[in-house]
Amino acid sequence: MEGQILIYDTTLRDGTQGEQISFSAEEKLRIAQRLAELGVHYIEGGWPGSNPKDMRFFQMAKDLRLGATRLTAFGSTKKPGIAPEHDPNLTALLEAGVRTLTIFGKSWDLHITEILGISPEENLAMIAESISYLTSRDKEVIFDAEHFFDGYKANPGYSLETIVAALSGGAHSIVLCDTNGGSLVGEVTRIVEEVRNSFPGASLGIHTHNDGGLAVANTLAAVEAGATMVQGTINGYGERCGNADLTSVIPNLLLKMGKKCLDNSKLTLLTEVSRYVSDVANIPPLNERPFVGRSAFAHKGGVHVSAIAKKPPAYEHIEPGMVGNKRRVLVSDLSGKSNIEYKANEMGIRLGGNGYGSREIVKEIKRLEDLGYQFDAAEGSLELLMKKTTGQFEEPFSLLSLRVINEKDKGGQTSSQATIKISVGNEEEITAAEGNGPVNAIDNALRKALRKFYPAISEMRLVDFKVRVLEGSAGTAAKVRVLIESRDGKDIWNTVGVSQNIIEASWQALVDSIYFKLSKDLSKGHPPDIR
Amino acid sequence: MEGQILIYDTTLRDGTQGEQISFSAEEKLRIAQRLAELGVHYIEGGWPGSNPKDMRFFQMAKDLRLGATRLTAFGSTKKPGIAPEHDPNLTALLEAGVRTLTIFGKSWDLHITEILGISPEENLAMIAESISYLTSRDKEVIFDAEHFFDGYKANPGYSLETIVAALSGGAHSIVLCDTNGGSLVGEVTRIVEEVRNSFPGASLGIHTHNDGGLAVANTLAAVEAGATMVQGTINGYGERCGNADLTSVIPNLLLKMGKKCLDNSKLTLLTEVSRYVSDVANIPPLNERPFVGRSAFAHKGGVHVSAIAKKPPAYEHIEPGMVGNKRRVLVSDLSGKSNIEYKANEMGIRLGGNGYGSREIVKEIKRLEDLGYQFDAAEGSLELLMKKTTGQFEEPFSLLSLRVINEKDKGGQTSSQATIKISVGNEEEITAAEGNGPVNAIDNALRKALRKFYPAISEMRLVDFKVRVLEGSAGTAAKVRVLIESRDGKDIWNTVGVSQNIIEASWQALVDSIYFKLSKDLSKGHPPDIR
Repeated sequence: MEGQILIYDTTLRDGTQGEQISFSAEEKLRIAQRLAELGVHYIEGGWPGSNPKDMRFFQMAKDLRLGATRLTAFGSTKKPGIAPEHDPNLTALLEAGVRTLTIFGKSWDLHITEILGISPEENLAMIAESISYLTSRDKEVIFDAEHFFDGYKANPGYSLETIVAALSGGAHSIVLCDTNGGSLVGEVTRIVEEVRNSFPGASLGIHTHNDGGLAVANTLAAVEAGATMVQGTINGYGERCGNADLTSVIPNLLLKMGKKCLDNSKLTLLTEVSRYVSDVANIPPLNERPFVGRSAFAHKGGVHVSAIAKKPPAYEHIEPGMVGNKRRVLVSDLSGKSNIEYKANEMGIRLGGNGYGSREIVKEIKRLEDLGYQFDAAEGSLELLMKKTTGQFEEPFSLLSLRVINEKDKGGQTSSQATIKISVGNEEEITAAEGNGPVNAIDNALRKALRKFYPAISEMRLVDFKVRVLEGSAGTAAKVRVLIESRDGKDIWNTVGVSQNIIEASWQALVDSIYFKLSKDLSKGHPPDIR
Repeated sequence: MEGQILIYDTTLRDGTQGEQISFSAEEKLRIAQRLAELGVHYIEGGWPGSNPKDMRFFQMAKDLRLGATRLTAFGSTKKPGIAPEHDPNLTALLEAGVRTLTIFGKSWDLHITEILGISPEENLAMIAESISYLTSRDKEVIFDAEHFFDGYKANPGYSLETIVAALSGGAHSIVLCDTNGGSLVGEVTRIVEEVRNSFPGASLGIHTHNDGGLAVANTLAAVEAGATMVQGTINGYGERCGNADLTSVIPNLLLKMGKKCLDNSKLTLLTEVSRYVSDVANIPPLNERPFVGRSAFAHKGGVHVSAIAKKPPAYEHIEPGMVGNKRRVLVSDLSGKSNIEYKANEMGIRLGGNGYGSREIVKEIKRLEDLGYQFDAAEGSLELLMKKTTGQFEEPFSLLSLRVINEKDKGGQTSSQATIKISVGNEEEITAAEGNGPVNAIDNALRKALRKFYPAISEMRLVDFKVRVLEGSAGTAAKVRVLIESRDGKDIWNTVGVSQNIIEASWQALVDSIYFKLSKDLSKGHPPDIR
C-alpha cells in the first residue's frame, strides 16, 4: 500500500535475548494471537534451527488464526562450503512451514574476516545462494543486514555489496540493522538516505537497538529517510539495552508523523498488549514507559491537575485513550466514580445497596489497591466486591478450618496434603486431598468438598496462576499477590488475593474464583466477564 | 570555554516530580555531593518558594564543598499585579543564598490566556521584570521557557517575544523546554535552529521530557543545532515518562559526538552515580538502562560471546569501562561452550574435574533450563552447579526432614510453622520456627538450625524473592520457578529453584543461597559475584 509502514514484531525472537525474558512455546502462541489482534504485519516466531522449543512453536502455530498477519521464521545464511539444500539451518527454516523467512547475514567486514574467518567473496556468495535457494522454494525472503551501520561506517563499498548480493538472490526486503545499538540519529538518517539512493527500487527496513538510548529515534529517522519496514519488540525487550520499543514507535508513526501502519482503531489495544506481554514475561511493567506506562499520563502537581481540568493538552502530548491508556490524577481520583458506574451497568449491579454508591466503592477499591490488590487484572474479584458491598451477594459456603501439610524427606521426596472443613447452609463437610504443591492440594480438597453441593464446579478449571512478590526488600516475609484465571465452557474470569502468606493469598483468589462461578450461574443473562 | 556543553542536573527538583521519587533534604545533600564529584556544571537543588524542605536544603547546602559546580534554586516568575520585591516566590529565591537562579515563565499562549487568564503583554512584563530584579541583585539568571516547542508550533511570534523579554531583563541563558515531551527530533532541530538565528548571541539550553520516547534524541538534536546547556536528570527520573536521562546524554555527547562536557576521567563514575541515585530513591535500578544498566553489556547468545572473546567491538558499541560499567556473560540455553569457559575463568573454577568440561556443563544447563531453571538470573546457583559437577563442592549440611504446616481457622487467622532436622558432619540438629508464610517459616527454621555451626549466616539476608509460574495452563498444578536474591556486607547473589511444589522450589533456592554464602566465605580471594 502506498505510504504504508510495515510493522515487523520480533518480541518472540530478538525479544527473548533480553536478560530475563524467556517464553515457553505455549506462551509464544498466546502472544502471537495478541499481536495479530493488534494488527502487526509480521510476527517473527523464532529461530527453528537453533532450538527444539522454537521448532515446536512453529508446529503448533499452524493452528493459529492470525488473519492478515504473517508469521515468519528467522535463521542465518548457510554455512560456508556447503550447498544450500544440505544446510541444516536453511532446512529447518523450510520445515517451519511459513511463507515468509528472514535470514541474517554479515555486512561488516570486521565480522567476516576477523570472526568468521572467511573471505569477503565467500560471504557474498553465502548471502546470494541462501536467498536464491529460499526464493526458488516460493518463499518471501527478508534479509537482515547485521551490523549494517557499523559496516557502512567502516567500509561502505563492501556493506553495499552485501545488499547487491541479497537482491541478486531475490530478497524482497533489505533490513538495515544497528546491531550494536550505538549509532546516532544523524548517522542513521544519512546512511539510510545513501542506501536508498543506491537502490532506488528496493524495499528497506530498519532494526535498531537501544544501547545509546536512541532506538526509537533512530527507527523514526530511518522511516523519514525512506525505510518502509520497522522491526522492533513490545516493551523494547531485547538483548543488552533492548530493541526499538514498538509501543513508542507505532504511536509516533501514526499520531505524530501521520504515517499509515496499524489500523487507527487497533491503536487503542496498545496499552493492553504491552501489559499482557510483560505479564507473560513476568517482568513488572515499566511505569514510565512512553504512551503505555501506568505513569505516562499521571499528574502529580496541583497546578498541572487544575490546568488539565481546563485543557488536557496543557500537560498531555496526546489524548491517553488513543493508545488505550488512562489519565491518572495522583491526588484525588474523580474519574474512578464514573468507571465504577460504567462497570456496574455492564455487570448488571444496582449501586446504592447497603449504602454503597460509586463513591464508597471507589474508596474501598483504593484502600484495597493500597494493600496490593489489583482489580484491573481481576474483574471477577471486582464484580464480587461490588456485589458484596451493595448487599447483592450471599456466600455459597463458609470455611470452618483448613490445614495444609508439606513434607520433604531425606531422599528429597516432597508431598502436600490439605484437610478442609466447610459448611453449606446447615450441612458440614470435612475432607482431605493431596496435590503437587500446597495450593494444588487446597484446590483439590475444596472442589472435593463442594462437589456434592454444587456439581457445576466440575465444569470449571483454573487455567492460569500467577504469583508476584510486592515488596522485594522484605525477602521471604514480603507480601505476595496471586492472580488466578479460570474458565468454564463459556467464560473466562480472573480473581486476586493478597497476603504475606502465599497460602492465604492463593486461598482468597481460589475462593473468589469459585464464588464467581457460582454467582454467575445463578444470575444468568448478564454479559460474561471476558477480557 | 569554546565548544563546551554545560550539564545542568535537575534530579533534585524536576526528578522528584516522578511518581515514586521523593528525597529528604539530607538525601539531596548526599546526591548533590556525588553530582559535584561527577563534575556537572549546575545542580538545581529545589524550589525554595514551594516547600520548607527545599528551603532547609539550601540552608544546609551552604556547607557543601561543590568545587566548580554551581548550585541553583528554581522558581516561577513573579505573580501578576505585584512588584518583584514584594513577590514571595522571588524573595524565597533570593533567600536560598545561591549565585545562580533559574526561573520559568510561560511561552505558549494557550497557557497564558486560557489557564492563567492574563494578557500576553502582562506575561511578557512578568518575565522581564522578574529577571531584571534578580540580575540587579547580581544573580546569574537562567530562564526556562516552559512549553516553548508547543508554543512555537502554535504561535512562533509570541513565543519568541518571551525570549526577547527574558533577554531584555538580562537573562544569561534561555532554556527551551519541551514540557509535554511530545516533540519529534526534526521539530526540535528546526525550532532550535530558528531560535538561534533569531538570537545569534544568546546562550541557549534544552530541557526535554520523554513522553514520546525521544528525550535523549531531542537533547542531542538541540546540541547539534546550537544549544550549549543541557538540562536532565540522573536515570531520567521525572514526571510522567521522565526527563532526558543524563546517564545517556553525557556519554553520547562525550564519546559519540566529541563534545566537551564532563572531564573524560570523571565519566567512569557514571555507573556508580546512577546506582547511587536509584538506591537513595529506593527504585530498583533499570537493568536495560543504556550505558549504565546491569544488562547494558551483558551477552547471552553463544555466537556473540565467542565473537567478543576475539573482538569486543563486534557486539559492544563502547568499551564498558569508559562509563564505569562491566561486561557480563550470561549463561542460558541460548549460550555455548565459550560462555561457560568465560564464566569459569571469572569464578576461579577449574574445568575438567570429574570429567566435566565446558561441553558437559552446557548440556547439563540446557537440560535444567528445559525443566524451567534460569541461570542467567541466578549466577549463584550456576557457580554451585559448576563446582558440584566438577567435584569442587562439598555440602556444608544435609536435610534429614522438613515439615511445614499452614492452618487457617474460621476467623480467617492464618499461621505457618516449619519443623526441620539437618545434619552437619556427624551432628544432628532439630528445630522449629514460625513465619509469615510457609517459605518464611522454612527460612527462619533453617537459619536457626544452622546458626550454631555457621555463625556467618547471620551476616546474610534475603533481599528479593520472585515467584513465576512456568506453564499457566496447568492451573495450580503448574510448575513454579523461585528466584532469590541475597546479600551480605560485601556481595549480592541470586539463586533459583524449580518444582511443581512451591515449597520445594523455594527450598532449593534457599539452600543454594546459603550454600553459596558458605562456599564463598571458604574460598576467599575468588572474584565476588557482584553485579
